[in-house]
Amino acid sequence: MLSPPLRPPLQARVDARLRSRIALSAAAEEGVQLRTGDFAAWLAERGRATDFRVERIPFAELDGWSFDERTGNLGHRSGRFFTVEGLHVTEEAGPFGDGPYADWYQPIIKQPEVGILGILVKEFDGVPHFLMQAKMEPGNPNLLQLSPTVQATRSNYTKAHKGADVKYIEYFAGPRRGRVIADVLQSEHGSWFYRKSNRNMIVEATGDVPLLDDFCWLTLGQISALLHRDNVVNMDSRTVLSCLPHPDTAARALLSDIELSSWITGERARHDVRTERVPLASVPRWKRGESTIEHEDGRYFRVVAVSVRAGNREVTGWTQPLFEPVGQGVTAFLSRAFDGVRHVLVAARVEGGFLDTIELGPTVQCTPDNYAHLAPPDRPLFLDTVLRAPADRIRYEAIHSEEGGRFLNAESRYLIVDADESDAPQDPPPGFAWVTPAQLTSLVRHGHYLNVQGRSLLARLNAAEPAGR
Amino acid sequence: MLSPPLRPPLQARVDARLRSRIALSAAAEEGVQLRTGDFAAWLAERGRATDFRVERIPFAELDGWSFDERTGNLGHRSGRFFTVEGLHVTEEAGPFGDGPYADWYQPIIKQPEVGILGILVKEFDGVPHFLMQAKMEPGNPNLLQLSPTVQATRSNYTKAHKGADVKYIEYFAGPRRGRVIADVLQSEHGSWFYRKSNRNMIVEATGDVPLLDDFCWLTLGQISALLHRDNVVNMDSRTVLSCLPHPDTAARALLSDIELSSWITGERARHDVRTERVPLASVPRWKRGESTIEHEDGRYFRVVAVSVRAGNREVTGWTQPLFEPVGQGVTAFLSRAFDGVRHVLVAARVEGGFLDTIELGPTVQCTPDNYAHLAPPDRPLFLDTVLRAPADRIRYEAIHSEEGGRFLNAESRYLIVDADESDAPQDPPPGFAWVTPAQLTSLVRHGHYLNVQGRSLLARLNAAEPAGR
Repeated sequence: MLSPPLRPPLQARVDARLRSRIALSAAAEEGVQLRTGDFAAWLAERGRATDFRVERIPFAELDGWSFDERTGNLGHRSGRFFTVEGLHVTEEAGPFGDGPYADWYQPIIKQPEVGILGILVKEFDGVPHFLMQAKMEPGNPNLLQLSPTVQATRSNYTKAHKGADVKYIEYFAGPRRGRVIADVLQSEHGSWFYRKSNRNMIVEATGDVPLLDDFCWLTLGQISALLHRDNVVNMDSRTVLSCLPHPDTAARALLSDIELSSWITGERARHDVRTERVPLASVPRWKRGESTIEHEDGRYFRVVAVSVRAGNREVTGWTQPLFEPVGQGVTAFLSRAFDGVRHVLVAARVEGGFLDTIELGPTVQCTPDNYAHLAPPDRPLFLDTVLRAPADRIRYEAIHSEEGGRFLNAESRYLIVDADESDAPQDPPPGFAWVTPAQLTSLVRHGHYLNVQGRSLLARLNAAEPAGR
Repeated sequence: MLSPPLRPPLQARVDARLRSRIALSAAAEEGVQLRTGDFAAWLAERGRATDFRVERIPFAELDGWSFDERTGNLGHRSGRFFTVEGLHVTEEAGPFGDGPYADWYQPIIKQPEVGILGILVKEFDGVPHFLMQAKMEPGNPNLLQLSPTVQATRSNYTKAHKGADVKYIEYFAGPRRGRVIADVLQSEHGSWFYRKSNRNMIVEATGDVPLLDDFCWLTLGQISALLHRDNVVNMDSRTVLSCLPHPDTAARALLSDIELSSWITGERARHDVRTERVPLASVPRWKRGESTIEHEDGRYFRVVAVSVRAGNREVTGWTQPLFEPVGQGVTAFLSRAFDGVRHVLVAARVEGGFLDTIELGPTVQCTPDNYAHLAPPDRPLFLDTVLRAPADRIRYEAIHSEEGGRFLNAESRYLIVDADESDAPQDPPPGFAWVTPAQLTSLVRHGHYLNVQGRSLLARLNAAEPAGR
């Protein structure tokens, strides 16, 4: 007698129903649990339920963190979490990055371990809902934002924090996990992190899921509406949501898929970027004081330290370093319709911390203050078009902040701006290409194609237009 | 009056006809130019047309190459081509790589520039033909093999060799190039190269193409037949051919595409591999003599030097270092049909020189001699199954050599071997997964998924069975 098969029979390589189910959730302006109109009150209530306070402190008051005597690198005595080190970046074909240099030194965060950013999905009344968390991060301007179900460094879930278990982690790691909808390693800020990537996961639960304090079930339509509010949907949520296989079925584009791949390959091969990790103490033009490490011209960002008191976090109090950008950023896609098909203009970006030479990013991604001292030709292309866009050309605008566990008040204006042939020609300058959101959705199934700022905007591009807008 | 559009109107993202045209070429057992039966004589004639000789020389006789006094690194005085340096690799979850160590030192080739490996395609009598070149590489056991149309390092085509122009390069670089069919950066041997990748291109010409000496037009069916001969189709040809969008339409598999992506992501996150470049002189257990750098146990590979005299190469004579493996390798996929759909067993492989922690490779990829001293449990999984496979289970077998411009007599037996539940269970051990050739073809549209040995076998998997076999 033959033994029964060890696994189910063959499966379809692609789940044909998934995209229509995602479309259903995107079209659902309300869900079964929390009404969008009640969200702000719920978030405020969650904030009141926990008493937390973040204060700047001198480096000397960091607990467990210190500067290495020999290298000047800033690290934790456990050897875990992350370190602040130095990086020397050399490239031939500048200007790229957040400064017009072909060769520069900077502090950088080194955090080699791969964390999990995971959103749990469950169907209620036939509509997929996403389990989101009200989570405090010390660098958020408003402390509490909407995070994925799970936002865990390896230190988190292997207990280096000596804190509470990571809630819902069993749906993402280990034998009991749910049905995977997306699972891909994506890069984070290449200007601030050295080769950091996190596992972006979306997992569907089949059985009952208990709803814990600080968590809520939302449809994609509800989350899309919240993406229009400032500082509500955190960076980790935005990057995970960008990895959803969205049901954009546009089968035509200015560039065929292979032409787009070829353009990306050409940009990767064209740039010759060399990076070298160096001791933080040896980084020229950056000065360490009692409370900050900053650039001598006051540009780019500062390394600072904070103390945190909180009740609902993994541990009840801690201190840590953060990177604090010196000004508000501008992160924008220029957008045009060609033959009725929406396109956005991507830029091939060199950032010192990327694993490969380039990733695609938004048309504009910079902190304008860093360029104020430069002559107009040295400023980023298309920045003026974005900054001077009249209101009727702005399809989307919101202020979002970057990951509050590493970055303090790192706010950017995220925009999608309509352009025309005079602003943004159909044949763009070298380093830029017109692509459709559907093409970006195909690319983000794989890592290292679209940077975290681009993914933030893709999450919005893929959302349905909210009602009343 | 409106100006005419700058580009053609929108295109289909995917060329629906391409796969059927590739199938047509794969089915064509003869082409319009050189008959398969005449190929061996043509290649031999090309060999006689050029007088070349390769001899081993002591390092002291290298011209322009020397060991750096401080680091012991071996490099060229121009600073170009490549260097031989040291690498320290540390990993938590061994054994992987070509030695059962969680921590090892080794010499490694550093060649940061990205070359072009390109095959030109043109339709004759409605059937796509591929332009292949009889090319001498000093490390090939038989010197002359069939290479892509273009096989050019950046030094080649920017004239660091001070030699002749690279023939047909204008179809792959610059404004006059043809229609791109594939264009992707793919890794090369992670055990021997530090983060090396080359641009794998397939480009279709629309106009007339002159046929130069040493070149021939072959159909895919012809090339498939040649893949059954030992040491004929060189590594560069095999990797480029693996990137063809082959018309395997199997829509079902044991793992859905997202389950496969998730497994790969999990393997990438699970392995914690750190690499550090170190001076060659500081690499322990490797000894430099007058003519070789070798491991004290005689295992793995040797660094050697050769002089080359040749007439049809970019320059008429040169000397260079090569890596010479100490034994013949075994590179094999175990294969099973599930529900009538062919699958192969891929391994998640850690190699010190990979850009990311792992890439997929064949089921078995090793040099058996390197493991002869170890107890059976420490030898590579599935090696015995491959070595002891009876003839009627061997679906494919040929000896191929690795890139003859860097590796001397680096031969492996490439095999595809039928397995059953007792040899290779449907639920494989950790680090292995069953995938279909169609799934591998989807993955190699992107870089850093399938290693060069896996791609060599994929080129064969995608070929039609030759007649009479």
